[in-house]
Amino acid sequence: MPEVAIVLGSDSDLPKIRECFTLLEEFGVSFEVVVSSAHRSPDRTKEWARSLGERGVRVVIAAAGGAAHLPGVVASYTTLPVIGVPIETAIAGGLDSVLSIIQMPSGIPVAAMPAGKAGGANAALFAIQILAVGEARYGEKLRAYREEMARAIEEKNNMLQKMGHSDYIKSREVKA
Amino acid sequence: MPEVAIVLGSDSDLPKIRECFTLLEEFGVSFEVVVSSAHRSPDRTKEWARSLGERGVRVVIAAAGGAAHLPGVVASYTTLPVIGVPIETAIAGGLDSVLSIIQMPSGIPVAAMPAGKAGGANAALFAIQILAVGEARYGEKLRAYREEMARAIEEKNNMLQKMGHSDYIKSREVKA
Amino acid sequence: MPEVAIVLGSDSDLPKIRECFTLLEEFGVSFEVVVSSAHRSPDRTKEWARSLGERGVRVVIAAAGGAAHLPGVVASYTTLPVIGVPIETAIAGGLDSVLSIIQMPSGIPVAAMPAGKAGGANAALFAIQILAVGEARYGEKLRAYREEMARAIEEKNNMLQKMGHSDYIKSREVKA
Amino acid sequence: MPEVAIVLGSDSDLPKIRECFTLLEEFGVSFEVVVSSAHRSPDRTKEWARSLGERGVRVVIAAAGGAAHLPGVVASYTTLPVIGVPIETAIAGGLDSVLSIIQMPSGIPVAAMPAGKAGGANAALFAIQILAVGEARYGEKLRAYREEMARAIEEKNNMLQKMGHSDYIKSREVKA
Amino acid sequence: MPEVAIVLGSDSDLPKIRECFTLLEEFGVSFEVVVSSAHRSPDRTKEWARSLGERGVRVVIAAAGGAAHLPGVVASYTTLPVIGVPIETAIAGGLDSVLSIIQMPSGIPVAAMPAGKAGGANAALFAIQILAVGEARYGEKLRAYREEMARAIEEKNNMLQKMGHSDYIKSREVKA
Amino acid sequence: MPEVAIVLGSDSDLPKIRECFTLLEEFGVSFEVVVSSAHRSPDRTKEWARSLGERGVRVVIAAAGGAAHLPGVVASYTTLPVIGVPIETAIAGGLDSVLSIIQMPSGIPVAAMPAGKAGGANAALFAIQILAVGEARYGEKLRAYREEMARAIEEKNNMLQKMGHSDYIKSREVKA
Amino acid sequence: MPEVAIVLGSDSDLPKIRECFTLLEEFGVSFEVVVSSAHRSPDRTKEWARSLGERGVRVVIAAAGGAAHLPGVVASYTTLPVIGVPIETAIAGGLDSVLSIIQMPSGIPVAAMPAGKAGGANAALFAIQILAVGEARYGEKLRAYREEMARAIEEKNNMLQKMGHSDYIKSREVKA
Amino acid sequence: MPEVAIVLGSDSDLPKIRECFTLLEEFGVSFEVVVSSAHRSPDRTKEWARSLGERGVRVVIAAAGGAAHLPGVVASYTTLPVIGVPIETAIAGGLDSVLSIIQMPSGIPVAAMPAGKAGGANAALFAIQILAVGEARYGEKLRAYREEMARAIEEKNNMLQKMGHSDYIKSREVKA
Repeated sequence: MPEVAIVLGSDSDLPKIRECFTLLEEFGVSFEVVVSSAHRSPDRTKEWARSLGERGVRVVIAAAGGAAHLPGVVASYTTLPVIGVPIETAIAGGLDSVLSIIQMPSGIPVAAMPAGKAGGANAALFAIQILAVGEARYGEKLRAYREEMARAIEEKNNMLQKMGHSDYIKSREVKA
Repeated sequence: MPEVAIVLGSDSDLPKIRECFTLLEEFGVSFEVVVSSAHRSPDRTKEWARSLGERGVRVVIAAAGGAAHLPGVVASYTTLPVIGVPIETAIAGGLDSVLSIIQMPSGIPVAAMPAGKAGGANAALFAIQILAVGEARYGEKLRAYREEMARAIEEKNNMLQKMGHSDYIKSREVKA
Repeated sequence: MPEVAIVLGSDSDLPKIRECFTLLEEFGVSFEVVVSSAHRSPDRTKEWARSLGERGVRVVIAAAGGAAHLPGVVASYTTLPVIGVPIETAIAGGLDSVLSIIQMPSGIPVAAMPAGKAGGANAALFAIQILAVGEARYGEKLRAYREEMARAIEEKNNMLQKMGHSDYIKSREVKA
Repeated sequence: MPEVAIVLGSDSDLPKIRECFTLLEEFGVSFEVVVSSAHRSPDRTKEWARSLGERGVRVVIAAAGGAAHLPGVVASYTTLPVIGVPIETAIAGGLDSVLSIIQMPSGIPVAAMPAGKAGGANAALFAIQILAVGEARYGEKLRAYREEMARAIEEKNNMLQKMGHSDYIKSREVKA
Repeated sequence: MPEVAIVLGSDSDLPKIRECFTLLEEFGVSFEVVVSSAHRSPDRTKEWARSLGERGVRVVIAAAGGAAHLPGVVASYTTLPVIGVPIETAIAGGLDSVLSIIQMPSGIPVAAMPAGKAGGANAALFAIQILAVGEARYGEKLRAYREEMARAIEEKNNMLQKMGHSDYIKSREVKA
Repeated sequence: MPEVAIVLGSDSDLPKIRECFTLLEEFGVSFEVVVSSAHRSPDRTKEWARSLGERGVRVVIAAAGGAAHLPGVVASYTTLPVIGVPIETAIAGGLDSVLSIIQMPSGIPVAAMPAGKAGGANAALFAIQILAVGEARYGEKLRAYREEMARAIEEKNNMLQKMGHSDYIKSREVKA
Repeated sequence: MPEVAIVLGSDSDLPKIRECFTLLEEFGVSFEVVVSSAHRSPDRTKEWARSLGERGVRVVIAAAGGAAHLPGVVASYTTLPVIGVPIETAIAGGLDSVLSIIQMPSGIPVAAMPAGKAGGANAALFAIQILAVGEARYGEKLRAYREEMARAIEEKNNMLQKMGHSDYIKSREVKA
Repeated sequence: MPEVAIVLGSDSDLPKIRECFTLLEEFGVSFEVVVSSAHRSPDRTKEWARSLGERGVRVVIAAAGGAAHLPGVVASYTTLPVIGVPIETAIAGGLDSVLSIIQMPSGIPVAAMPAGKAGGANAALFAIQILAVGEARYGEKLRAYREEMARAIEEKNNMLQKMGHSDYIKSREVKA
């Protein structure tokens, strides 16, 4: 019984939201990942979406690009919170995906995340923030994660102050 | 048994595609109009879409705005040709509707029409053009309609030549 | 101790998310509404955001337009789920608000809702969907709400079938 | 006597709609492909478009980029259904092509397909859906194609469940 | 034998380029105005475009909105300079018209003017600048017109300095 | 000898940046306002821009819409800081003005302000912030202004808490 | 005494409008090419622009990217026809350049060409079309060029018919 | 005690504004560079921003991409002039960054610079222009820099005239 269920319209999008899987694992959240298309396998998508509540899933993440209907279609079949991740496309870098996911009609909300790499990561974190509403242990982990993020930036900054901007940039280029 | 089936996600969009109804009536095409939302009544929308083929419908028109998923959702449940009409919105005058309808994934086509008033009219005409592939009488009517359009422009032009641009503009303003 | 806390950068945006208040009241959710700007009263905004967790608030809604930083700034001070509502503007009808809210960096998620009237309503509903993860009674209410929405569309459709599209459009115009 | 006629404004666009040819062949649809520009060879384009009806062609596909006038120009010379495919460009990835094809004036419809690789494929499928209105055998093939698509997704999903997301992503990367 | 020929796809656009007519008259340029659509009366548009050279016309102005093909279509039939005027639309205020007119393919140029009221005026002035390449008298008139424009601004500025910004704004509001 | 010099390309833009004048007066900053166009009176614009440094002006504000070249042209003639204010237009509400002002080439900076009403106000405040770099008294005034802004929001919020959102919205509507 | 004068704001744009030079040479048009920036060398740009008329230049071409003011600035100093070429940028592939060049204010026209490779070619051709208004020999060359273009497309099409689309695509790929 | 303080939300943006550091060094301006995120380390960002005035800093530069809140957040904590640099992103090449930085609300100005490489350079130059308001020596350096820029363009132009466009382009390609 996974806490989070993730659906993608195409298996080619799996690597694009990789950070989502990594973060959920890092936080110890149980999750499932399925590939099911809003348009190409609508019956299975519907069945899957309808089954989520009964199976005890608590948050849903749906990633799609272009006329990215998947998050909205899933949301139409469940009252669980659905998080939508716009996949980047050629049209202005994903403006089509962004607008197709965010502009949902009144009544059926979808929580739109950023396009690009941040989308997968933030979908995971937002799912955990939702779980944390009911479970204290996630709250603590989230606060620790935030502190770690702040500390990581501080460390980079300390290094930058020590090295100076010029050497710091060079050292980064060497790594890359 | 209607030849064309039209669906709108909201009854507030009915007047926005009025030209669609007028034109279908003018061409003597039988049609039905239903209100059913991709997101708010997904089961009825699915049932309706699934019933179309059996009921002998031949072309489908779906109009929606914003994250305009309706045409795509209907298309996922039928192999009949689906024509999508983007309803104007505040976001750049309907860019969200246009992109949500046109950017369908490979495998499930939707024929996107223009946003705005031309959308309803052209959806009707395109539906008739599809019907005309099988029925000669629609082809003749379409050609007559085209000739009539050309004649109407020519008449306006003749009037413009007679009156001169200045008086013609004034006469138009009086009417408006 | 409100379950939901709502913040707006300007009191002039209050009527624009009116549906948010109505829906929360309809569902019996306790909530507070405050006006505090990310830029013009950053200290109070920070204090308020920092206090949310301790005060037992469970979900936050932040509405803003233009360089709509408020949702992101609030999210930087709390690990509660933050829902962002883009207020419409002159720039392409709110494309600036949409992009400023949705394109959050990796690590600090904001759940972006649609621009325009649907934004306030969906923010309320999404907040309730989050609360429902922990509280069964909200889940039931949400399902009832969905059914009511579907029924309302069906009723409109029945009326449309009875009256025909032409009379139905006229009757709507009389009301407006 | 081809059932479908395809026109491109430039031979450099031929590989961009390759899926169109493959799919038509797969479905056993007879078709012709010509290169003729709306602007650089307007007389031949007109002649060709005018000849389509008499030659028994039933559906037209026109692909173009930028100020993509070709679909509209062809549509102005025939009452056959014209499907427009926007070719990707540098301007926001093809927003110019999309708007130039979709925003046709009232009276002369063009069915706009997605920009990018999906455009060619969906043009072919939509053409077949139109042919299927009159010919039962295409309908069966289309339904089989849809089932095959759903099955392909299901297989990928089965593999994903068996391998887990991490190994599945790796195996995909090896192939690429 | 007009020096400038103006074509509009719809008579409803006539008042939108009114400044075009006024300026041509002011400069004593002979011109004709016709209504002929690229899509609805393609044959007449072609004939007209083809006749321009023989009839001694020297510059062409074509105004259109949406998938604004008219300037490009006219340009495909003549080697006279064609000036395109994008008519404002709902899509981002005319972004569709702008891109459909400006993004012409290599080989068939169209000179794109601004969308909105400036479009008609600048089309007239640019036409006159082209005529002035061959006729000295237009050059003198153009220089006088430029001086007059500069003088008008200077006068407004003098008035502004005399009245102060506050009274000047008030006086403008009274007039409006 | 004004501290701030303001230039507009058209006197019709004067009321659109009215807040600019009010704020400069409120802060006791001396300023001049001139109307001079980058394109229609380029010589006077150049002369004016060249004179600014010698006349002791310290900051320049230039407001323009569409192909809003005025701020950039002024910046090319002076090394004083130039603040650009994009005037709203029909194209996506001023996206043309925004991009024409902000996308200056390397070497000649212009400080771009928001489109719309905030543009004039922020131009004034930013000019004062620049003056404050050298003059302590402006710094104090700016801090007082910020505190006043924060206090005004707090007062509105207090009123909102006292009245409740429903009555507060009604009271606002009565005023409007 | 060149017939056409070309100016670029940066020498890095020279290769981007290479087709412009090739075409002018092909047509035997005399031309000069200078590098002068609207913002970085405004005085030289002005002087150059002012000198054009006296030096007998008849048409001007100005290419620029981003806040592409160069065409407008040149146009403000001459009544010769100015053709503007938008250079591609990162912002939506050159939407900033397009809008900065096309949206000129009433009174000072600039003829905007397409962004991208077609821009340079069409600027040359449009310049020649303007020259042809006064000189018959250019008209003949233009007509020959058009015929050649049509013939080239026809030849490609003949090859395509002979080889079939599949082999034709392959043969193109071998060349590339 | 640095005159200019620079903040970036991520160390990965350091090389993207490299020209900023080079130019400040060239002009002999003392500066500090820190990495601190508006969202991931909000407390340190606030503290840093609050410390600027007391520490004698006179101008602030903040660079960020996507929902680029950093410049606005810093501006909310200081009355020093804040210059915002939009970092390029996938969404239309940085349209999200541009709008998030430029569309600040009335009361808290941010001076928006261009997206892309010019952003860092112009931020440095604009900072120096602000410093020059109070310090004569910077004014002289700025004028010398401008003259040098004009001279550099003139030299390139002289070389272009000597070599001809064709050889000049080739010589550039060899270097690259």
